[in-house]
Amino acid sequence: MTGLDRIRFLPLHDKVVSAEKALELIHDGDVVGMSGFGGAGEAKTMPLALAEYAKTHPMKITLATGASLGNRIDGKLSESGAIERRYPYQADPILRKAINAGEVMYIDQHLSEMADNIRHKNLAGINVAIVAATAITEDGQIIPTASCGNSANFIEMADRVIIEIDTTISPVLEGVHDIYVPKTRPNRGPIPLIQSSDRIGSIGIHIAPEKIAAIVMNEIPDTSFGMDQPDEDTLAIAKHLIHFFEQEVALGRLPENLGPLQSGVGSVANAVFAGFEHSSFSNLQMYSEVLQDCTFQLIDSGKMTFASGCSMTLTDACAARVLGNFDQYKDKIVLRPQEISNNPELIRRLGIIAINTALEFDIYGNVNSTHVTGTKMMNGIGGSGDFTRHAHIAIFVTKSYAKGGAISSVVPMVGHTDHTDHDVDILVTEQGLADLRGLAPRERARKIIDICAHPDYRDALNDYYDRACQQGGQTPHLLREALSWHARFEELGTMKIA
Amino acid sequence: MTGLDRIRFLPLHDKVVSAEKALELIHDGDVVGMSGFGGAGEAKTMPLALAEYAKTHPMKITLATGASLGNRIDGKLSESGAIERRYPYQADPILRKAINAGEVMYIDQHLSEMADNIRHKNLAGINVAIVAATAITEDGQIIPTASCGNSANFIEMADRVIIEIDTTISPVLEGVHDIYVPKTRPNRGPIPLIQSSDRIGSIGIHIAPEKIAAIVMNEIPDTSFGMDQPDEDTLAIAKHLIHFFEQEVALGRLPENLGPLQSGVGSVANAVFAGFEHSSFSNLQMYSEVLQDCTFQLIDSGKMTFASGCSMTLTDACAARVLGNFDQYKDKIVLRPQEISNNPELIRRLGIIAINTALEFDIYGNVNSTHVTGTKMMNGIGGSGDFTRHAHIAIFVTKSYAKGGAISSVVPMVGHTDHTDHDVDILVTEQGLADLRGLAPRERARKIIDICAHPDYRDALNDYYDRACQQGGQTPHLLREALSWHARFEELGTMKIA
Repeated sequence: MTGLDRIRFLPLHDKVVSAEKALELIHDGDVVGMSGFGGAGEAKTMPLALAEYAKTHPMKITLATGASLGNRIDGKLSESGAIERRYPYQADPILRKAINAGEVMYIDQHLSEMADNIRHKNLAGINVAIVAATAITEDGQIIPTASCGNSANFIEMADRVIIEIDTTISPVLEGVHDIYVPKTRPNRGPIPLIQSSDRIGSIGIHIAPEKIAAIVMNEIPDTSFGMDQPDEDTLAIAKHLIHFFEQEVALGRLPENLGPLQSGVGSVANAVFAGFEHSSFSNLQMYSEVLQDCTFQLIDSGKMTFASGCSMTLTDACAARVLGNFDQYKDKIVLRPQEISNNPELIRRLGIIAINTALEFDIYGNVNSTHVTGTKMMNGIGGSGDFTRHAHIAIFVTKSYAKGGAISSVVPMVGHTDHTDHDVDILVTEQGLADLRGLAPRERARKIIDICAHPDYRDALNDYYDRACQQGGQTPHLLREALSWHARFEELGTMKIA
Repeated sequence: MTGLDRIRFLPLHDKVVSAEKALELIHDGDVVGMSGFGGAGEAKTMPLALAEYAKTHPMKITLATGASLGNRIDGKLSESGAIERRYPYQADPILRKAINAGEVMYIDQHLSEMADNIRHKNLAGINVAIVAATAITEDGQIIPTASCGNSANFIEMADRVIIEIDTTISPVLEGVHDIYVPKTRPNRGPIPLIQSSDRIGSIGIHIAPEKIAAIVMNEIPDTSFGMDQPDEDTLAIAKHLIHFFEQEVALGRLPENLGPLQSGVGSVANAVFAGFEHSSFSNLQMYSEVLQDCTFQLIDSGKMTFASGCSMTLTDACAARVLGNFDQYKDKIVLRPQEISNNPELIRRLGIIAINTALEFDIYGNVNSTHVTGTKMMNGIGGSGDFTRHAHIAIFVTKSYAKGGAISSVVPMVGHTDHTDHDVDILVTEQGLADLRGLAPRERARKIIDICAHPDYRDALNDYYDRACQQGGQTPHLLREALSWHARFEELGTMKIA
């Protein structure tokens, strides 16, 4: 059987079964914990078989993961009506629709918190863990694939464990993971990580072999990732950011290598990292969630010396280059469980610069990361709260407009708050960068409007702010008008006043 | 001179000057860092002299503190027009008025973050530190008084240091403080605290003697604290909470001593702690900010074995009892810098149950802790964000109504968000306790309305929620109506629909 050689702890060969057989381990009403983070490293054969099965055998599960799953698994399980409850994050259009229709109960959570919430019984225990593995070592350690997510936690906590050997994953990945699981309280100690590059755990997940209920072979590859190309606006955002970093170093407020960087995914991140490529910065380090092509480009050019993440989502071309020459990268990257990659203790200790994307922000610097017009869930807060609250400098980026200008990303009041003004240091749009550190709300407002807002909306924002100030307050607002921009968009398809 | 014997490092006797003389060290435009937290442990002679001086010699300072100051110092400095900028917290009616009028720029911050923000240059450096001291030891350590606040940080960072020897403070307090200052990044290590009761630092603040620019003698005592008496509603809140804790222990979800407790100050806290007095719990521990009478009552009755705080605010009667028999308490309490008492790393490691007071919360569990009707600052977020985000269980309490029923504390949408639904586990009013763990927004809404809202407002809230659900979304809202309750209160003096 293909891949049997990846199960190097030989007694486990007896556990290999078909997906159909393994399905018997998943029961209606179960809480199922699956591997997968950033659309990478998910189990595939089992969840897809479950989605098929549920079409004809109605059942409902609570689905817990690392974060988003690839291969449209969330969508397919949702279409089959198999998901009753979902946490802590998703990014699938079909599941999103079901969530916003109130058909799936979605509990959007800080990614670093879920393991403790299960471990310490704020959330229900895990009945079944389904975890993708590159291999099982001679001593029975489970080697994750392209992400660590909550896999170690699910395996530790689950009643029944199903391992999916992913025969499509390059075996060179063995050794790149660093699995550290905090102790159950009380008597939990410090997490002994001092530098982004420290290794503090084991290369695989320890599990008593008898706890493995089934092993399934998988031949479906991880989703193929595209690369968001920067456009004029994202390049402008990147330019503002790089300029800010240069200034801060010149003023002696940031170290020459800036300190460890965290960055969300997508075109802005790509543009910023492309900007670093042509900057004077060197010895850059990442302590982030998802490692993308741009990380490896900076490693290739010698600009970046180390990158710590929770998952790896590369284009085919980049994956071929990296995995084909993995000896060159092995000592420059590490993948960690999300409880460690996103841990407040470490983020504050390391002094991370966090760069995340806002859906919208308001004139006082409150940020909405999740809810379109304040009500409809896009994806979820993900790790943005973990990083933003504890970062040395917390930065949010977005284009100043959306929907061809019908939406202003700078609004009088956000329709939903994910990050409060206390936690937001810097806002950047293609228009400019507003440094809000040490400023009171009234000072933030003028700066945000004048620097970040699109010129089409600047006068209306200033008008709102001036009239609000006449009412007084630390954070002046016109309560009857504060959300009128969102209401107008819902009613007329534009935030613009006719 | 009274109190000279408290300066046991003899070369410093030469530094003793009058307040008038020491005032010369404070310049127009300075950033001044003062001791004081929870209305206790502030320097008094110097700030009050400064307030007098500024009446006739106009000047503006940025005032940084631990948290709130006693002796109306914020109000008096504000009346003299001496405060241009203020952080991270205040609780003074006169200063509050100036803040809401836009006359003072107030930067409301998480209390744990300010030291790092100054140390790592997100905020301006400290020109002058003014710190109250119980004594200066033979080796030159500064022993704080009734609070630690940011004093160690201010002393470390300031260009000029003024020490105020507080001759009114009982010298028995020497030894109760545990001063630990995290290293500057990079190469910062873990904070080596594993249990609430661990001592990890020194009994005083280390400073090179030559850095002390002046020593002033103070004879003004700390503010005398009253004790908020529980009323019927706060007793009901306490009853709901104690019942919840008992249930959680019975279900095996909480340890028998609950784990370390954090609690805000005031009548609800007093009621809860009075509730513990008559409960079956024992071996209770606190890891909190302010230690009040109720802490010592639980220690006296043997219910509480240890309490860690940042400040101590006792009634005269309790202070006399505690300080008169301090040997009985010495090994049961510790006062820490706010960077440690409120540190996310430690709060998550210890698994704290955090109990804080909300101004209002909405039907989805977002909490407003700071802004009356969403615009006017009350005090500030204080440590509530530090504790809530990282707590094992985050609880907010409030009466379901205010202003004799004209205000509902449960609203369709909070006028200002300080704590997002991600961070809020339990809501309690006198009406009941809503356990929101693991629930999606739509589930939270029904529970919050039915359990927590005042009956007078329940129908209107259910009506809003039902109509909002018809619009769909993860977090259904009627954008034109969401803040109408606050607007109605501003316009008509009541949230009730006529």
